[in-house]
Amino acid sequence: MPDVQELKPAGAGREASQTDRAIMGLRDAVLRGRFKAGERIAEVEVAEHLGVSRTPIRAAMQRLAEEGLLEPVQPTGYMVRAFSQTDIADAIEVRGTIEALAARLAAERGVSRLLLQQMRDCVAKMDAVFDDALSDEEQLRQYAQYNERFHALIMEASGSDMVQRALGRVVSLPFASPNAFVSAQAILPGSLAILRVAQMQHHDIVDAIEARSSARVEALVKEHSRIAHKNLELALRNADALDQVVGAPLIKRA
Amino acid sequence: MPDVQELKPAGAGREASQTDRAIMGLRDAVLRGRFKAGERIAEVEVAEHLGVSRTPIRAAMQRLAEEGLLEPVQPTGYMVRAFSQTDIADAIEVRGTIEALAARLAAERGVSRLLLQQMRDCVAKMDAVFDDALSDEEQLRQYAQYNERFHALIMEASGSDMVQRALGRVVSLPFASPNAFVSAQAILPGSLAILRVAQMQHHDIVDAIEARSSARVEALVKEHSRIAHKNLELALRNADALDQVVGAPLIKRA
Amino acid sequence: MPDVQELKPAGAGREASQTDRAIMGLRDAVLRGRFKAGERIAEVEVAEHLGVSRTPIRAAMQRLAEEGLLEPVQPTGYMVRAFSQTDIADAIEVRGTIEALAARLAAERGVSRLLLQQMRDCVAKMDAVFDDALSDEEQLRQYAQYNERFHALIMEASGSDMVQRALGRVVSLPFASPNAFVSAQAILPGSLAILRVAQMQHHDIVDAIEARSSARVEALVKEHSRIAHKNLELALRNADALDQVVGAPLIKRA
Amino acid sequence: MPDVQELKPAGAGREASQTDRAIMGLRDAVLRGRFKAGERIAEVEVAEHLGVSRTPIRAAMQRLAEEGLLEPVQPTGYMVRAFSQTDIADAIEVRGTIEALAARLAAERGVSRLLLQQMRDCVAKMDAVFDDALSDEEQLRQYAQYNERFHALIMEASGSDMVQRALGRVVSLPFASPNAFVSAQAILPGSLAILRVAQMQHHDIVDAIEARSSARVEALVKEHSRIAHKNLELALRNADALDQVVGAPLIKRA
Repeated sequence: MPDVQELKPAGAGREASQTDRAIMGLRDAVLRGRFKAGERIAEVEVAEHLGVSRTPIRAAMQRLAEEGLLEPVQPTGYMVRAFSQTDIADAIEVRGTIEALAARLAAERGVSRLLLQQMRDCVAKMDAVFDDALSDEEQLRQYAQYNERFHALIMEASGSDMVQRALGRVVSLPFASPNAFVSAQAILPGSLAILRVAQMQHHDIVDAIEARSSARVEALVKEHSRIAHKNLELALRNADALDQVVGAPLIKRA
Repeated sequence: MPDVQELKPAGAGREASQTDRAIMGLRDAVLRGRFKAGERIAEVEVAEHLGVSRTPIRAAMQRLAEEGLLEPVQPTGYMVRAFSQTDIADAIEVRGTIEALAARLAAERGVSRLLLQQMRDCVAKMDAVFDDALSDEEQLRQYAQYNERFHALIMEASGSDMVQRALGRVVSLPFASPNAFVSAQAILPGSLAILRVAQMQHHDIVDAIEARSSARVEALVKEHSRIAHKNLELALRNADALDQVVGAPLIKRA
Repeated sequence: MPDVQELKPAGAGREASQTDRAIMGLRDAVLRGRFKAGERIAEVEVAEHLGVSRTPIRAAMQRLAEEGLLEPVQPTGYMVRAFSQTDIADAIEVRGTIEALAARLAAERGVSRLLLQQMRDCVAKMDAVFDDALSDEEQLRQYAQYNERFHALIMEASGSDMVQRALGRVVSLPFASPNAFVSAQAILPGSLAILRVAQMQHHDIVDAIEARSSARVEALVKEHSRIAHKNLELALRNADALDQVVGAPLIKRA
Repeated sequence: MPDVQELKPAGAGREASQTDRAIMGLRDAVLRGRFKAGERIAEVEVAEHLGVSRTPIRAAMQRLAEEGLLEPVQPTGYMVRAFSQTDIADAIEVRGTIEALAARLAAERGVSRLLLQQMRDCVAKMDAVFDDALSDEEQLRQYAQYNERFHALIMEASGSDMVQRALGRVVSLPFASPNAFVSAQAILPGSLAILRVAQMQHHDIVDAIEARSSARVEALVKEHSRIAHKNLELALRNADALDQVVGAPLIKRA
């Protein structure tokens, strides 16, 4: 499995505290499947493994419970949560719905020429990666970077702090993120076709924002987010690809 | 200002800890306008006022920052955030968008006869309050209770844990909640007309869920949430009414 | 039943031809219930009744068949069509969908200050009628006129000849028009509440067009058109009111 | 230019009358660009060319004016209409909007297993054509046939006579039809990619109808119709391809 992306903790910008290290370390361990879903996590063991004391571990567990990766067990403590395919589909809908709201506001309020140009440049760079055939991992990594930037630009285009905050609270589930399945695509037959559709949607999204077509862009972004769902279905039929998906061990198999 | 609703803390179900008390006490103080927006909050003072030690106060501040009521100041500490009218409009859109997603899923997946009947009963009770003229505060309080229940039933009808979690993370701003302005309506001329529109929407929402009209119900719930926006505009023109709105001191005046 | 509105025939602007007179006369007779649904219409009889020859009668029948009021019978000729409540609901959806498209394009493309002001003036005049209590028929007639003008302004605001043409082809069914039930409302208990909701929607529609909120205005106009459906349901429970609805004899009773 | 599809006239099922022949002949001539846009059409000339008398020619002109291909000129007569790119985009939106309404109703009301299976079979046949590389004209012709059938199945799935009638009145403009550009695609570089996106949408549309996701299917069908717009833009940059588009002579060039 690739490196878990190090999500910025709450106190970002200051020196990473013990708590921040505990959060990142525990999240990484959870997403890699170090704990069995449904089993109580032993604080002592985690503290030893990560080399931090038990107070930050407890804070980290509470935080991951808020993110939805852990859930409390009676009488005390936490266990890893498992996610059904419906859970994942719903998480994708939630993220897509908020991103679609951002794009809708961008179309309604209008965006600066500069921001629009940044979006076009970003899409052009993804086009260029495609022209180079998109066959190796390095190209996929590049594509994933531009893709992440494109989605960040949509949020910026909303001009809304409240909408950006709302998204910040739902992307914690790795399967729901725009890049969740990009790294799996190098080895997934059929996934290139899906990627091409996604890329056409990127073009359409910028066009619709520029044309102030808020109804269209809202629908486009929602549908675009469902690409993650198509990829999940492909990945679930291919063990090697699934192994590339961050957090795969948390997926409940039917 | 009426009592701030005591939102259940993370550790609900267990004995309310010092931290829980600190969170509730601090949130109440913030919403009542005890601190000036933009001024650093003095930990010592809060600790003394609430009668808890500084460690739970620090945890409470971090929590309220996650909820969006506080923001970090450099080099350390937190200050109260103020909200522009655009912020509030956006917060209402975010909540409405997620609630609309819940209603859409309910219509698509279908809901049980029992749940549908509970929704109809709840709307019927609101109708009955209307027939009694809805003139005094006691009736508004009743209406607000049924209203809160109705919105909870929509979330339940989604059958989606992920969507319910997502809503749980955005309702922290009091102006964005379905009942934000109900208590202000007793003294707001023009607000009764708005309430009647809201009540017709309640009927339509149940009809649309029953008819599996997911597109319609999604639009209805979004538009329904904008009722809060209409009420905010009325309240901002009426100081007495505004005083009834939880969190009013945090609203930036143009 | 009130006078059937004299829809302008294709050759409008020139002297009304025999064919035009035949079309208007036959349409009026059909909507008043002069022919039984399902029975072949006798050309000779109609020709005599309207005082025109049989060739224009035949052209008129073909035209009304295109409008959907008549349907061909084997081996030759036409009969009056009856409409189920689902047919009417669907006709309302069709009209609402096209009107919503017009409003969406208006929001996306932007409308002139002048046109926006005309919309606001029109809504203000409807507000004024409401302030005068809207109790007698004369006021309802005024309201209906402003209402018709408001809906015409939405179409004009689209700036789209193609969308206006499309609407021109679907309003032929009288139950699907914005004013279908306005004249019935003087005697319908409960209809005033519906009218007030409709009027709030008028305000919201103008606001949404001005704010370039194309997604919102599309949903608003669709929902607004369903007011006709609510009124139909009320009217179907009240014989006197139903008698005021143009074309009521064509409605199939369950 | 390929043969103009012989749209069934109003009196279909009976022997094609002189009027029917006049309508089809005149429509064909108009779409092939036999008359200059903006110039009055000489009745005598057309009558001679088609070998029918002047009365049916006059009826045919009136009919084509209703379809939107001709418009009246003062003091009498008709001329061919030219269509701007905005007109065409709007015509595509109108058709897409009504088709989307049909799909939405299908999802809300549910469709029979049989009909769903027919839709799946139809999409599978289009998949099969793709597997055979879709390189020659014969394959495109097959694809176009299945495509037309698929769109007819969506209309049937609505179960709504009123919606089907509404569509019947707007497809007269050849550029707005689902197959408008399929025959041009054999020679359009870039069009295969567009066709693949369209085919993925076909799959998604059936999935969404089956899942009762009316909001999603409405958005999908609208976006699907905009494929015609993408193709138009490609065709306008390629004279050979444009020559394959029925009605191309009526398109106003910027």
